[in-house]
Amino acid sequence: MDRKQFRNLADPDVARETIASLDLAPETETVPLRDARGRVLAERIDAGLDVPGFDRASVDGYALRAADTFGADEADPVTVRRVGQVHAGSEPDIEVAEGECAEISTGAVLPPGADAVVMVERTDLGETDDDVLVRTSLAPGDRVMFAGADIAAGERALGPGTIVTPREIGLLSAIGVDEVSVRGVPTVGIVSTGDELIRPGEALDSDAGQIYDVNSYTTATAVEEAGGEAKLYPHAGDDYDAMEAALRTAAEECDLVLSSGSTSASAVDVIYRVVEETGELLLHGVAVKPGKPMLVGELAGSAYIGLPGYPVSALTIFRAFVAPAIRRAAGRPEPKTATIEGRMAVRERYSEGRLRYMPAGLVTDGDGETLVYPVDKGSGATTSLVEADGIVSVSPDVEYLDAGESVEVKLFSSDVRPPTLFGAGEDDPALSRLLDRVDRPRYLGVGGRQGRRRLRDGVADVAVVTGDSTPDGVELGGWSREWGLVVPTGNPEEVAGLADLIDDDLRFINRTTDSGLRSTLSDALDDLADERGTGRRELTDAIDGFELAVRAHESPARKVLKGDADVGLGLQATAESLGMAFVPCGTERVSVVADPKRADKPGVRRLEAAIDDGAAVFDELAGYRG
Amino acid sequence: MDRKQFRNLADPDVARETIASLDLAPETETVPLRDARGRVLAERIDAGLDVPGFDRASVDGYALRAADTFGADEADPVTVRRVGQVHAGSEPDIEVAEGECAEISTGAVLPPGADAVVMVERTDLGETDDDVLVRTSLAPGDRVMFAGADIAAGERALGPGTIVTPREIGLLSAIGVDEVSVRGVPTVGIVSTGDELIRPGEALDSDAGQIYDVNSYTTATAVEEAGGEAKLYPHAGDDYDAMEAALRTAAEECDLVLSSGSTSASAVDVIYRVVEETGELLLHGVAVKPGKPMLVGELAGSAYIGLPGYPVSALTIFRAFVAPAIRRAAGRPEPKTATIEGRMAVRERYSEGRLRYMPAGLVTDGDGETLVYPVDKGSGATTSLVEADGIVSVSPDVEYLDAGESVEVKLFSSDVRPPTLFGAGEDDPALSRLLDRVDRPRYLGVGGRQGRRRLRDGVADVAVVTGDSTPDGVELGGWSREWGLVVPTGNPEEVAGLADLIDDDLRFINRTTDSGLRSTLSDALDDLADERGTGRRELTDAIDGFELAVRAHESPARKVLKGDADVGLGLQATAESLGMAFVPCGTERVSVVADPKRADKPGVRRLEAAIDDGAAVFDELAGYRG
Repeated sequence: MDRKQFRNLADPDVARETIASLDLAPETETVPLRDARGRVLAERIDAGLDVPGFDRASVDGYALRAADTFGADEADPVTVRRVGQVHAGSEPDIEVAEGECAEISTGAVLPPGADAVVMVERTDLGETDDDVLVRTSLAPGDRVMFAGADIAAGERALGPGTIVTPREIGLLSAIGVDEVSVRGVPTVGIVSTGDELIRPGEALDSDAGQIYDVNSYTTATAVEEAGGEAKLYPHAGDDYDAMEAALRTAAEECDLVLSSGSTSASAVDVIYRVVEETGELLLHGVAVKPGKPMLVGELAGSAYIGLPGYPVSALTIFRAFVAPAIRRAAGRPEPKTATIEGRMAVRERYSEGRLRYMPAGLVTDGDGETLVYPVDKGSGATTSLVEADGIVSVSPDVEYLDAGESVEVKLFSSDVRPPTLFGAGEDDPALSRLLDRVDRPRYLGVGGRQGRRRLRDGVADVAVVTGDSTPDGVELGGWSREWGLVVPTGNPEEVAGLADLIDDDLRFINRTTDSGLRSTLSDALDDLADERGTGRRELTDAIDGFELAVRAHESPARKVLKGDADVGLGLQATAESLGMAFVPCGTERVSVVADPKRADKPGVRRLEAAIDDGAAVFDELAGYRG
Repeated sequence: MDRKQFRNLADPDVARETIASLDLAPETETVPLRDARGRVLAERIDAGLDVPGFDRASVDGYALRAADTFGADEADPVTVRRVGQVHAGSEPDIEVAEGECAEISTGAVLPPGADAVVMVERTDLGETDDDVLVRTSLAPGDRVMFAGADIAAGERALGPGTIVTPREIGLLSAIGVDEVSVRGVPTVGIVSTGDELIRPGEALDSDAGQIYDVNSYTTATAVEEAGGEAKLYPHAGDDYDAMEAALRTAAEECDLVLSSGSTSASAVDVIYRVVEETGELLLHGVAVKPGKPMLVGELAGSAYIGLPGYPVSALTIFRAFVAPAIRRAAGRPEPKTATIEGRMAVRERYSEGRLRYMPAGLVTDGDGETLVYPVDKGSGATTSLVEADGIVSVSPDVEYLDAGESVEVKLFSSDVRPPTLFGAGEDDPALSRLLDRVDRPRYLGVGGRQGRRRLRDGVADVAVVTGDSTPDGVELGGWSREWGLVVPTGNPEEVAGLADLIDDDLRFINRTTDSGLRSTLSDALDDLADERGTGRRELTDAIDGFELAVRAHESPARKVLKGDADVGLGLQATAESLGMAFVPCGTERVSVVADPKRADKPGVRRLEAAIDDGAAVFDELAGYRG
């Protein structure tokens, strides 16, 4: 077995410099002003005309000669004669002489002869409507905005590098600019490698080890978020000629080509070969976890970066190394890094001697302080993408982060906020629906046993558990659910109860030991053993598949549906939602218990209210009672 | 003159509640996952399949039975026989029996019979390539990711209200979701009113008081920024039937109709009438500055908000009242409000008894502390849109903000940062180009006199002044520029110098008194007066138009170009760039002087370097010498 190993891993800073040396910058382009939002100006824009373009009345009133109002006040007005009027948007057809005035609206052109405007509120009409009494003294220029006073022709309006937001659009509109020269958007080609990958939406053959391609869409979206344009190339599968062709086409059409690591050694070999034939491999392997197997090079005149294959690794490396390069090429500033200080909620060991980008979740404790916990579900897990809020950089020489130690979390974006509620425990369909009523909750369906542990450790705000023995804390409420045996439609094996599992030749499938439902089953088997005057172990040994356990609440039923087993442990609600038959065995209590110090967190209160008010949810699910 | 006055202005909170009572929420829609970035999930998404869909090898190595490795270690390996191999993306065609193993790649399906994987690094080959020596003991499940371990069918993946970012795209890809139900985007129709408005790009007749329509594009962009879709309706000009038709069509097609206040009373009357005929006016007038004349109502089944007409007022009111409603309708959370504490750089009086949203600029002093100064160029100015960084809310009962007083600035967005350099003073084409080399500078071309004042007040970092008397501070450098009289091409009046202005019948146009160039002209006239044995005043009185002053460096020349005058005060560079003739009068020094406490600010250093290195800029401009 000859597989490439990464030796001499590059220092992360060297990797950054190598990427910075690549040329990704596209050419500038011209876009209509209306479409310029978010673009970056390529060059300075000077005003080409005066704004306003004429001497302009700032108020509704009368245009006149300031000298005529000398000495006028409330008690002793001056009378001027109205000789006409000027509306906004029309050219004055009168001239104002000494002792005269013209009615004028805001925004209208100051008529010739006039040098000031008196606001209507400081005037009255005299004996006739054409006699205007002015009750204030004016200076030349009063209530007039002179031509060019806002911005004058030839003045600097906006500089190169300015990001166009509504206010820049406003200024550019004012100076009549209807198209602008902007920095081009770097085009990033995404080539998907890996025989086992299927694009979402297509049919998946799990038995053949196929999985959905996570990196293509994720990377494409991340490219767009960084200010690039993503171009997806057709997935080449195991056709290495097609893969080579895709790489070459992408290099021709794009400023940067990204691939994400294939688990297939031959795919990696194709990439190596194409890079070496048409360009240069500048770097392979970086001393960082996750993301060690990063490639940087040039490919047929384009820049090339190979991301690691696991989604969490690929996105982490993209954010740390590739996004800054795309932003630079697009002329965008680094976003204000949103970082948050927090205390480690638990101790985390680390001793791999490489810089570690540790995905971390946040939770607010009862005092509003931020706690940080590592999110590490193994490199292959895509759920850790959404269970983390940011990254803690752990230096190579740190061996552990202690519980209570202060760390800095670089948030995934400045909009990331800790969840309002952090729960852990039993996986339950009613809970799922109740959580829909909470704003930004985070819930880990890790089973009641793990939920208890996380509540005790002070990580979770609430634990969701089954059975009568609830952990210490404030009970927010609960419900009961019918549990039993899920069997195929029509119950072909005529299963009647737990006894049949022991006595008949049935393939059973259980839940994992963290599940509360499994404990409930064990308790029921204890009762049955007592009845039969035997031990529980004897009964479980007689059940074919008692140790065959799957994780989530629908998993055993789905195994039955697939024909992998005859009977699955499950809920009546699950049987109903999957259109299967159900053999009831009992009723189980589900309780939601909060850490007393966090019972007043808004999300916890919201969940409590949702349970109180949950009748509709419980009614909708077979076998539930609030 | 019968114009509507706003009485009983509504409290800002009442205005907010009234707007919140409008129904802007669009229907949900389904979009492809690839286009879902930034959208808001309309409903919960549960996983429809297990991820992974099979028991999956987490490393490259050998699949085997854990029991076979019992007791194995580095020194004492166990030998198992290789019976085949399994690649990622293909169905295993072998079964692993006791004492056997299968070569397996990361991501491949665990073959039947095997319950663990040993990584290749913990193995060696034995006598033949089919004898694999395992140098570690394994437990069942080691290096295997079980089906559904990441997320299992039936588990809650994402909740309603989740904003789709790359990581959500990742998780949804993993569970094979290729389209999602998302909150609709509220459609906002923008109806432009006002006879005097011309869309950017069209020809402008300034003599007829036309101005470019600033609010349409600005509001449209702000709508998009808030998560809405903007629809611009054709500008109806003074055709009130067309305006009414536009309002009705917009109401039919959109969730919300916005207009921005017209200065024309009859346009306002049309809006009033249409609103009252087809809906209801809920509120007119809000006790806030700027933005008093806001309208809120219902219009032919759609929501309607009338924004004030001045661009700064319109955008301020949009941000404070309308954007939150659009975000709510789109299901987006309020963005993390970026606020910054700072000290008032100057005293600001205020006494209108209304809540004031004061546009404010930021500048960092030498110690890195943030200073805040009001940006108030009069309501009509569009430049204040870009000269401010955010808004200070001043309560109705505050009469003044003292210099040094601490205030809170709500930034226009969380990406707003104080400029790296804040300069004020002379308006100069070389300076404009030098500023292009500074990242995010802010420069106010208010003339040398105002520049000196702002430097002295500790507001500006640098002042740009003309003449030999420079303000106290660190001189960063400077240049000289040829000044004189700008005349039409061919110099038809044969102007030879300043004396001709006095002795001939020429219409002259000057710069305003804040301009350094005007002072230079006055000094030259002093010399001429001395020569002639008379006073300066006598000379200036003899110049037709000496008091006719315009603001910016190109303004007099452009007046001449337009035929409004025969001779303008200006620079050789301006004459050249406008293709006009030039009568030189002398050379003027321009100096850039920094506040000594701020000479080390990065932007100030950058400007200094740009001046030092400015030869190319000075060479490019006629009459300049570095």
